[in-house]
Amino acid sequence: MIPSVPVPLSGERFRVVYRLSGSESECREKAQDICLEQTVEFPAELVPDGDIRNSVVGRIESLDRVGENRFAAIVSFAVETSGPELTQFLNVVFGNTSIKPDARVERLDLPESLLRAFSGPRFGREGLRARLGVPQRPLLCTALKPMGLPPNELASLAYQFALGGINIIKDDHGLADQPFAPYRERVRQCADAVARANRETGLNCIYMPNVTAPADRLAANAMFAKEAGAGGLLISPGLTGLDAMRQLADDDGIGLPIMTHPALQGSFVASPDSGISHFALFGQLARLAGADATIFPNFGGRFSFSREECHSIAEGASTPMGRIKPIFPTPGGGMSLDRVPEMIRFYGSDVVFLIGGGLHTHGPDVVENCRHFRRMVEGQ
Amino acid sequence: MIPSVPVPLSGERFRVVYRLSGSESECREKAQDICLEQTVEFPAELVPDGDIRNSVVGRIESLDRVGENRFAAIVSFAVETSGPELTQFLNVVFGNTSIKPDARVERLDLPESLLRAFSGPRFGREGLRARLGVPQRPLLCTALKPMGLPPNELASLAYQFALGGINIIKDDHGLADQPFAPYRERVRQCADAVARANRETGLNCIYMPNVTAPADRLAANAMFAKEAGAGGLLISPGLTGLDAMRQLADDDGIGLPIMTHPALQGSFVASPDSGISHFALFGQLARLAGADATIFPNFGGRFSFSREECHSIAEGASTPMGRIKPIFPTPGGGMSLDRVPEMIRFYGSDVVFLIGGGLHTHGPDVVENCRHFRRMVEGQ
Repeated sequence: MIPSVPVPLSGERFRVVYRLSGSESECREKAQDICLEQTVEFPAELVPDGDIRNSVVGRIESLDRVGENRFAAIVSFAVETSGPELTQFLNVVFGNTSIKPDARVERLDLPESLLRAFSGPRFGREGLRARLGVPQRPLLCTALKPMGLPPNELASLAYQFALGGINIIKDDHGLADQPFAPYRERVRQCADAVARANRETGLNCIYMPNVTAPADRLAANAMFAKEAGAGGLLISPGLTGLDAMRQLADDDGIGLPIMTHPALQGSFVASPDSGISHFALFGQLARLAGADATIFPNFGGRFSFSREECHSIAEGASTPMGRIKPIFPTPGGGMSLDRVPEMIRFYGSDVVFLIGGGLHTHGPDVVENCRHFRRMVEGQ
Repeated sequence: MIPSVPVPLSGERFRVVYRLSGSESECREKAQDICLEQTVEFPAELVPDGDIRNSVVGRIESLDRVGENRFAAIVSFAVETSGPELTQFLNVVFGNTSIKPDARVERLDLPESLLRAFSGPRFGREGLRARLGVPQRPLLCTALKPMGLPPNELASLAYQFALGGINIIKDDHGLADQPFAPYRERVRQCADAVARANRETGLNCIYMPNVTAPADRLAANAMFAKEAGAGGLLISPGLTGLDAMRQLADDDGIGLPIMTHPALQGSFVASPDSGISHFALFGQLARLAGADATIFPNFGGRFSFSREECHSIAEGASTPMGRIKPIFPTPGGGMSLDRVPEMIRFYGSDVVFLIGGGLHTHGPDVVENCRHFRRMVEGQ
C-alpha cells in the first residue's frame, strides 16, 4: 500500500501539446495514459490519493479535435516533476510515451518559473549578427568536406570560402577525429586559414569546427577550438545528447556561438503521428538547449522535409519563449545557388543559408562562387 | 575542384545491414545514397577519384530481396570513417540517413579492429550474476515508485523489496533530482535500507539509483551512488546520449553494473521501415555502450512491442560480438506475476524480470509479494 503523502509543489505547471490519433474516447484514454506514464508510471488504481494523484500526475487541460481521428491534447505537469534539468524535462515530456504508438509532441509551453532554469542561446540572432558584423541580410554558411581530405586541404578550402565572403564555415558534421584529419590538427589549420582570409578581407568570417565527440572529450574539444581561434562550434546533439549542447552553451569559459546539426534526430520526425514535431525538436528544444542556429534539411533538396515542416522550424526558432532568445533557422542539404531568391522569399532575412556541394558546382573557382552567392543574397 | 588525395586506411571495414523499401532499383539507389550520405556527403560527381571515391565512400556489399518491395542492403564503411568514437560510429551508421524515409538499421557487424575501441559491458551476464550471487535462474528486479514519495518512503519500499528477495531494486527512471526526493538524500536512504535488509537476509540485493542527469552532473551522481553503497546504476541514454553511458561503464573509479532504460528511444523503433531495429538499438548498441542489462517493454504489457521484437532484443543482447560480453534482456512495463511461467518459457533463464506495479497488486504485503515472485521464478 503506497502511502498518501503531502508533496511540496509550487502549483506552477508546464504544458505539452500532444497530437493523438484515434476516436475521441481513444484519444482521451491516451491522454490519460500520458498523464500517468510520464510521471508516476503506476496503474491508476494504485496511485495514492492526495498530492500525488491530484498534482504529480499529469492533468488533461483540453482535448480538441484537429482532424479526422486526430486530437490535440494539452497536458500539464507540475514544474517540479522536471525540475531544472533538461534531461528530466525531456523525460517528462516524452520519455516513456516515445515508446507508445500514435502520440506526438507538438509544442511546449513553459512558464517563467521553469524557463528560468535554462539560459538558452548565449548569442541568439542579434548576438550572432553582431559577431559577424552582418546586421540585416541572411547569413552565408558552407561546410568543409568531403571526409577524407587532410587538414591542409580542408584549410585551403576554408581560406577560399572566407575570401569569398562566406560568414560561417563549419566542418562537415562527419569530420570527427579521424586519422586522415585529426581534430586538433584540422581545427588549428582551418582556424588559421580563416583568420588569414579575414585579415585580407576585413570581414569577420567564423570557423565552426565539429566538436561532437565522446562525452569525456566534448568540453576539451570546445576549449581547444576556442583557443585555436574558432569563432563557433558545431555539434550534433542526436549523437551527444541534447544536454551536452546545453552544457557547452552555458560554459562561460567557452562562450562561443553554437550551431546544431540534426544527425540521428531524424527518427523523431519520421512520422506525423509519433515522435516530436519539427517545431518543437529543431525549434523549441534546440533553443532550450542553447543553439544559436539550427540546421535542418530544406524542402526541395535531397531530403524530404515539406515546406510546411521547414516553415514550422523557422517558427519554433523564434516563437516567444520568455527570455530564451530567437535563433537562426539554417536550411541546408542539397541546396543550390539558384534557389537563393526563393529561399529569401520563404524564410525572410533572419536565416542562415547553408550551401555545401552547391558552392563547388556553380563554376570552377570556389572563391568566385562564394562571391556570387553573396551577391545573390545581398542583391535581394 | 576537390583534389584527389591518398587517404591512409587500413582496409578494415565494418558492415551495416539496412532494410530498404521500394523496388529493387529504388533500393539500390537508396543504398548508393547511403554510401555517400553517411561519409562524404557530397554529390557523386564531385567526389574526387582515388581513395576517397574508392574507400572512404561506403560500399554496397550486397542487396537482397527480403520481402515484397523490401530489400536488405549490406553497406560497408572503412573503420577509419568512424574511428574509435561511439558518437562518430553512430553518425556513420545512421546520422543523416535517419532524416531520410524508408531506411532502417537492422544489424551491425564490427571487425575486431573496431570492436577493440569499445570495452562494452564491464560485468555482462556472468559478472552481474557473480555480484548478486545468483548463478542460474532469472534475476528479479523492481522499481521504486511512484514519483512524489519522499526519500524515507522510497527507502521503506526498498527495504521491503530487498527483504522479500528481489535482486535488483532500481529507481523508477522518472526519479531525478526533484525537490520532493532529492537525488543524494534518496540514494543515501535507499542504499542504507537495502544494506540493512541484506544484513538480515544474507543476500546481495543491489540498489541501482537513476543517475540520469545533465551532462556536467552525471559522473558526480555516479560517484556519489558508489560511495553511498549503491550496487549499480540506472541510466536513460536516450536522455543523456549513448556515449554518456559508455563513459560511466568505462570509468574504473566507478566500476558498477549498469542498466539502460529506453526513455525517449521509442521513436527509433516506431516504424518497421525506418529508425533502428530493436535488435541493434536495445541489443547491440546497448552493449557497445556498456550496459549490463537492457530494459524494454515486454510484449503483452502496456506497451506495444511484439513477441518477435522482444525476442530480437534478447538475441541482440547475446549475439556474438567479439569480446563484448552478452548482457541481460530486461523485459518490463506492466508485467504481472502470473506471467512469470510464460516469460521463462519465452526468455529462458538469462533474463532480468522487471516487475513494478505488479508487486503491489498481488496482495497487501509487499514483502510477501516479493517472496511469491521469487518462489515462482525458483520453482520453474
